[in-house]
Amino acid sequence: MRTEIATLGEFGLIKHLTEGIKLENESSKYGVGDDAAVLSYPDKQVLVTTDLLMEGVHFDLTYVPLKHLGYKSAIVNFSDIYAMNGIPKQITVSLALSKRFSVEDMNEFYAGLRLACQQYHVDIVGGDTTSSLTGFAISITCIGEVDKAKIVYRNGAKETDLICVSGDLGAAYMGLQLLEREKAVFKGETDAQPDFSGKEYLLERQLKPEARKDIIERLASAQIIPTSMMDISDGLSSELMHICSQSNAGCRVYEEHIPIDFQTAVMAEEFNMNLTTCAMNGGEDYELLFTVPITEHEKISEMEGVRIIGHITKPELGCALITRDGQEFELKAQGWNPLKKTN
Amino acid sequence: MRTEIATLGEFGLIKHLTEGIKLENESSKYGVGDDAAVLSYPDKQVLVTTDLLMEGVHFDLTYVPLKHLGYKSAIVNFSDIYAMNGIPKQITVSLALSKRFSVEDMNEFYAGLRLACQQYHVDIVGGDTTSSLTGFAISITCIGEVDKAKIVYRNGAKETDLICVSGDLGAAYMGLQLLEREKAVFKGETDAQPDFSGKEYLLERQLKPEARKDIIERLASAQIIPTSMMDISDGLSSELMHICSQSNAGCRVYEEHIPIDFQTAVMAEEFNMNLTTCAMNGGEDYELLFTVPITEHEKISEMEGVRIIGHITKPELGCALITRDGQEFELKAQGWNPLKKTN
Repeated sequence: MRTEIATLGEFGLIKHLTEGIKLENESSKYGVGDDAAVLSYPDKQVLVTTDLLMEGVHFDLTYVPLKHLGYKSAIVNFSDIYAMNGIPKQITVSLALSKRFSVEDMNEFYAGLRLACQQYHVDIVGGDTTSSLTGFAISITCIGEVDKAKIVYRNGAKETDLICVSGDLGAAYMGLQLLEREKAVFKGETDAQPDFSGKEYLLERQLKPEARKDIIERLASAQIIPTSMMDISDGLSSELMHICSQSNAGCRVYEEHIPIDFQTAVMAEEFNMNLTTCAMNGGEDYELLFTVPITEHEKISEMEGVRIIGHITKPELGCALITRDGQEFELKAQGWNPLKKTN
Repeated sequence: MRTEIATLGEFGLIKHLTEGIKLENESSKYGVGDDAAVLSYPDKQVLVTTDLLMEGVHFDLTYVPLKHLGYKSAIVNFSDIYAMNGIPKQITVSLALSKRFSVEDMNEFYAGLRLACQQYHVDIVGGDTTSSLTGFAISITCIGEVDKAKIVYRNGAKETDLICVSGDLGAAYMGLQLLEREKAVFKGETDAQPDFSGKEYLLERQLKPEARKDIIERLASAQIIPTSMMDISDGLSSELMHICSQSNAGCRVYEEHIPIDFQTAVMAEEFNMNLTTCAMNGGEDYELLFTVPITEHEKISEMEGVRIIGHITKPELGCALITRDGQEFELKAQGWNPLKKTN
């Protein structure tokens, strides 16, 4: 069944997609349906982050189901709010669609979006739906809240601070490699048969990532305020360099401490790729990278889902990875950079 | 001179474009450079609006200079905040660029954007720059403030309220027709020579619109809080129908009171178009449409730049235009609807 979007028009489509949306947060005063949404943040600081995702650059609808895309589009924005030690509360959603897309397609996309919002208690408060000549463009803005005293920027890392990451790295990138291989098979460009069994975790990390709300809550329970934090979207190397440059510091991270899932390691071997490179530069992990004072060592080393991977140094020492055999390699940002990639 | 964007990369480009941006509003605590911007609104309600503009749908770079596009992209968002009776304070800017665009192009775009922000005292606090496979996509989110007691929604119009509009209507649409004609000349599709003399106002309304900050200030000085308000982006007819449907009301507007500039009238005749249709459905005027209680008649009729064009009725009477010869025509939303247009 395919219903053309033209049968509803812009206002009809927005109305259809946002029907039945209830605002659950105290700070959401008025949502979809006027020139602007109305929010109220008398006691908190307001966080605002925005992301623009373009078909063919950020996602490939050959293998990304629209429902997953809706879910992930929301999650990547929530992740930016958590990375400030905040809590996401509202999103606005702007979509541009070519005539390839039907009302049913948008239902799928919105189903994913609404699922993510329900699970993270975020309200959809506005947006814009329009057309594009080619492809699908998604722009999401997320608004969140944080206590003034608890905001964590990228620029507060101090010498001797411990460098920590949540979860494990490189799996989302391996999931992408798997899907790209399947696409090649589908097009008859290779004989290899896609085999996803035992690799579900990699696909899930790529197609349905989660934002680390749980880590923010654990840090709060342990009364730890990181000295710096960001989320890992472009790859650990690139993000470490951001923190160090903004904090005017250097760092040492240890290859042996980089958290990597078993499936990621198996897959890297299968693809004949360097595992550490994948973990350092893969991107799209949406894990948290943060630094804490060394005095928090005991508390942080006991925290579930968090790994200490190195420490902050004086800026003169630069940023380096120490390999298992003790060699030092200067970090380079080889992360995913869409502007370099396609221009 | 053409500098490829790839020479700077995503982070380099953002840094280059946002260099030297100073935050001038008290509510802007932290701008570009972290996972999210930090704002503070302890005493006001927060307004959020967003817009996604796509090349080929919303703008045509054949005749729209990038500096003007930057200016207009900001203005259309400010206009949405004024339409809530608020004051715009911050924007985030997300851009997706194909390889056709150079660093110099982006300098032009940002020059227009920054000019608009300076003139309206709005801070650029964040954004995202990425690539697109084709064309240019612009997503701007604007954050503003308003006193809780002064917010004006679309849904408060009451029977007997006066319907008012600021400025004049239809000129931006006529400017677009002029530019489209020039484009046809350029392509050799017609012999007509583009002649812009005496038509500067129409071009300015299309290429460099302003948001009606002055009207919001005049309403505040006169201590008038409209019962409903929105900005005219899709055309007066369409917007009147939004206000009436959301307010559960009807309306009567009078053709003879619709404010139209002399140049718009001359141009409509030259193009052999119905002038009232252009003014009612042209779109992109970014004027304010609002309703006030009839008790404000004296104050509002003396207000500079505001015209009373009709009144609100019971919903049973529907929405109608009364022509100069006394005929009643039901309003139809023939306004610009990008989803209908290209799908």
